[in-house]
Amino acid sequence: MTPLLFPQHVIARKRDGRALTRDEIAAFVRGATDGSWADYQLSAMLMAVFLRGMDTAETAVLTDAMMRSGIVADLAGIKQPKADKHSTGGVGDKVSLHLAPMVAACGVAVPMISGRGLGHTGGTLDKLESIPGFRVNLTLAEYRAQLEKIGLALIGQTGELAPADKKLYALRDVTGTVESIPLICASILSKKLAEGIDVLVLDVKFGRGAFMKDKARAKELAGALVSVAAAMGKPTRAVLTAMDQPLGRAVGNALEVAESIDCLKGKGPADTMEVTYALGEQMLVLAKAANSPAEARQKLESVVASGAALAKFRDLVAAQGGESRVADDVARLPQAKLKFPLATPRPGWVGDVNALGVALAALQLGAGRAKTDDRIDPAVGVSALVKIGERVEAGAPLCLIHANDEAALAEARTILRKAIVVGDAPATSVKLIDEVVG
Amino acid sequence: MTPLLFPQHVIARKRDGRALTRDEIAAFVRGATDGSWADYQLSAMLMAVFLRGMDTAETAVLTDAMMRSGIVADLAGIKQPKADKHSTGGVGDKVSLHLAPMVAACGVAVPMISGRGLGHTGGTLDKLESIPGFRVNLTLAEYRAQLEKIGLALIGQTGELAPADKKLYALRDVTGTVESIPLICASILSKKLAEGIDVLVLDVKFGRGAFMKDKARAKELAGALVSVAAAMGKPTRAVLTAMDQPLGRAVGNALEVAESIDCLKGKGPADTMEVTYALGEQMLVLAKAANSPAEARQKLESVVASGAALAKFRDLVAAQGGESRVADDVARLPQAKLKFPLATPRPGWVGDVNALGVALAALQLGAGRAKTDDRIDPAVGVSALVKIGERVEAGAPLCLIHANDEAALAEARTILRKAIVVGDAPATSVKLIDEVVG
Repeated sequence: MTPLLFPQHVIARKRDGRALTRDEIAAFVRGATDGSWADYQLSAMLMAVFLRGMDTAETAVLTDAMMRSGIVADLAGIKQPKADKHSTGGVGDKVSLHLAPMVAACGVAVPMISGRGLGHTGGTLDKLESIPGFRVNLTLAEYRAQLEKIGLALIGQTGELAPADKKLYALRDVTGTVESIPLICASILSKKLAEGIDVLVLDVKFGRGAFMKDKARAKELAGALVSVAAAMGKPTRAVLTAMDQPLGRAVGNALEVAESIDCLKGKGPADTMEVTYALGEQMLVLAKAANSPAEARQKLESVVASGAALAKFRDLVAAQGGESRVADDVARLPQAKLKFPLATPRPGWVGDVNALGVALAALQLGAGRAKTDDRIDPAVGVSALVKIGERVEAGAPLCLIHANDEAALAEARTILRKAIVVGDAPATSVKLIDEVVG
Repeated sequence: MTPLLFPQHVIARKRDGRALTRDEIAAFVRGATDGSWADYQLSAMLMAVFLRGMDTAETAVLTDAMMRSGIVADLAGIKQPKADKHSTGGVGDKVSLHLAPMVAACGVAVPMISGRGLGHTGGTLDKLESIPGFRVNLTLAEYRAQLEKIGLALIGQTGELAPADKKLYALRDVTGTVESIPLICASILSKKLAEGIDVLVLDVKFGRGAFMKDKARAKELAGALVSVAAAMGKPTRAVLTAMDQPLGRAVGNALEVAESIDCLKGKGPADTMEVTYALGEQMLVLAKAANSPAEARQKLESVVASGAALAKFRDLVAAQGGESRVADDVARLPQAKLKFPLATPRPGWVGDVNALGVALAALQLGAGRAKTDDRIDPAVGVSALVKIGERVEAGAPLCLIHANDEAALAEARTILRKAIVVGDAPATSVKLIDEVVG
């Protein structure tokens, strides 16, 4: 190793606000992957990047190096265009579960590798695992074979993909270096592009229930993600969506699967379908399976109406060892012992449904993880949740709480009573789809 | 621990440019001392401090917390005022060796705890250890007893003093976070104030052979050191001195001890005596042992002229187990086998003596350490070095090289031939004493 690539020299260059060279970035990522940089050197570098930033070219090089720190799935054998969607995470965001089969039913392969939930946002893998028998830990060979067969796979992160990201993410979490746009970009894109996709659509959420509270910051992130992906030769668009109240009416793993199945049948909540179509349109257009968003919308609506999307979901569940009859009978999903309708304290108009409050209630019930090794209860959560702007009459339920524990139920009730506000005047919520970037 | 003092929260506050509270700084320093902060959290914080800075109040709190991370020597039993001097380090800087006995001979106690050399600057401890038998590793009890008896002790860092600094310094060295003024201030002052002193004089060097190459930066550091020490209630002054050519005519451990003994006899090189008197004057004035620099100068000159300073040096060497007869017979110091006069390539005027080049030659000969566990050869180095502006006649020596190894001698010769430039016109060197700050 040339002395110029010693960790302290590379760190000092970023510390001084210089743009790092390809070799310097490669040394850093190699250091994270093979342990040749100590953790304290990695974290000093992460802080320097946090405070000094990285331009698009540097971020693209970082993303590329992180992507190549492990295996990059080779999906060249699959003839269809390959598109994926990634969400920065929100409360009740179950869109992947039904969007992926819808897009696959339109002839675009969807090779989707997802994460687990931590904190207030649920993970796609956790939701899928509430389907009895569903396996998320496929090998990359199984993943490829399934994509060739049904054009769709939803699996978990394997240690083979972007190991540098795993290392760096764990350090960022405990060193105050999470909210850095270049680091977020590299983390998201290194994993997504390692899947072997051609195009990518991002759902960048903003608001109380999102990772980015502030719309301007979310827009900045969306712009950076699109620019960096473009610099890496992957056509990408980002849809900015509001996340103040939960998406849809269900929060909790099996409850969200049931709601996704509703969506596949064309009976999903309006807000969830709106986000689903907005993302699906971009996926089909980018993948050249449609010439315009309007044409894409028509195709998506038609696979829902024909039952082709639901059939694709059945194929997916069956291919990954799950009980595919849940698609037709959601009672086969895990059920909670206690179901408690939370009555409104007064008649009126729903003025607020605080996404963070609902997430906290779900966490209390056991639907999520506060720490990475917490066990999840698939059955619990909240369903039939009212939406901002709706009218509730005296004594009507604001939601149905699903619990397996009296004490947790009582806690959740208290939290939800604060999270859901009923007032005198009709309220309007923030516009759900703000903008498409890219 | 309150969640607000979790490492990632404290790091994030500094990352966002906030002034840290006393509790936050205490949590950080405690974390460095007891291991409750991981190394990667400490280094992320160090980088955040490097890039966001700390104001004088924060730096004083940091210094205080680092000082109190270990034992603070209690010298209340010693009735004399207690003064110390610290140098930021330079090539050939042996001033402590003779300044401490001179000041002690004037009735001011000098409790001096020093470090070892690393890289291009030599350490006071290494120089002292070239005196046969000299022990630097006294316990704090022995240190106190010796100070009571002779008003003077020059010992090594003990693990009991400022352990947080030891931890943080090691991390800074490998994470590109050394050159931060608040971190340098806290590192220097936490150790020096743990000695139990009343007043402190700092020799802040600038130029090619100094830690701070740039005069403006050195001045900034001097100002910060004086302000922070004042905020901690310790009267402190800083003298800015040039370090482009080596100080004095000798570089190498025993060779520098011999030169210091010359200084104690009033026969030292002019530049070395100039710096010595400038620092000594400030020590005596701050310690209220003199009313003015001029009066202090007179006292210092008189203890040299009377032999009292040399006698104090003999007492020091004897008290710490060394061969005190070296004071009268420098031939008792270790001698190198090979002594090679480096002849000038031409007659002329000395235009440059590059301090870094001379240091590198000394390092090649074995006088210093490139790594912390390197062994030092006390006898080797360079003596009788010409100074910038001096006239050399044809064939006259530019210096005398002391070596114990033919190959190292050859290397040193090559390096020194480049470091010492002889030209046609008389040159003038940079003003040695630039300014007194404080």
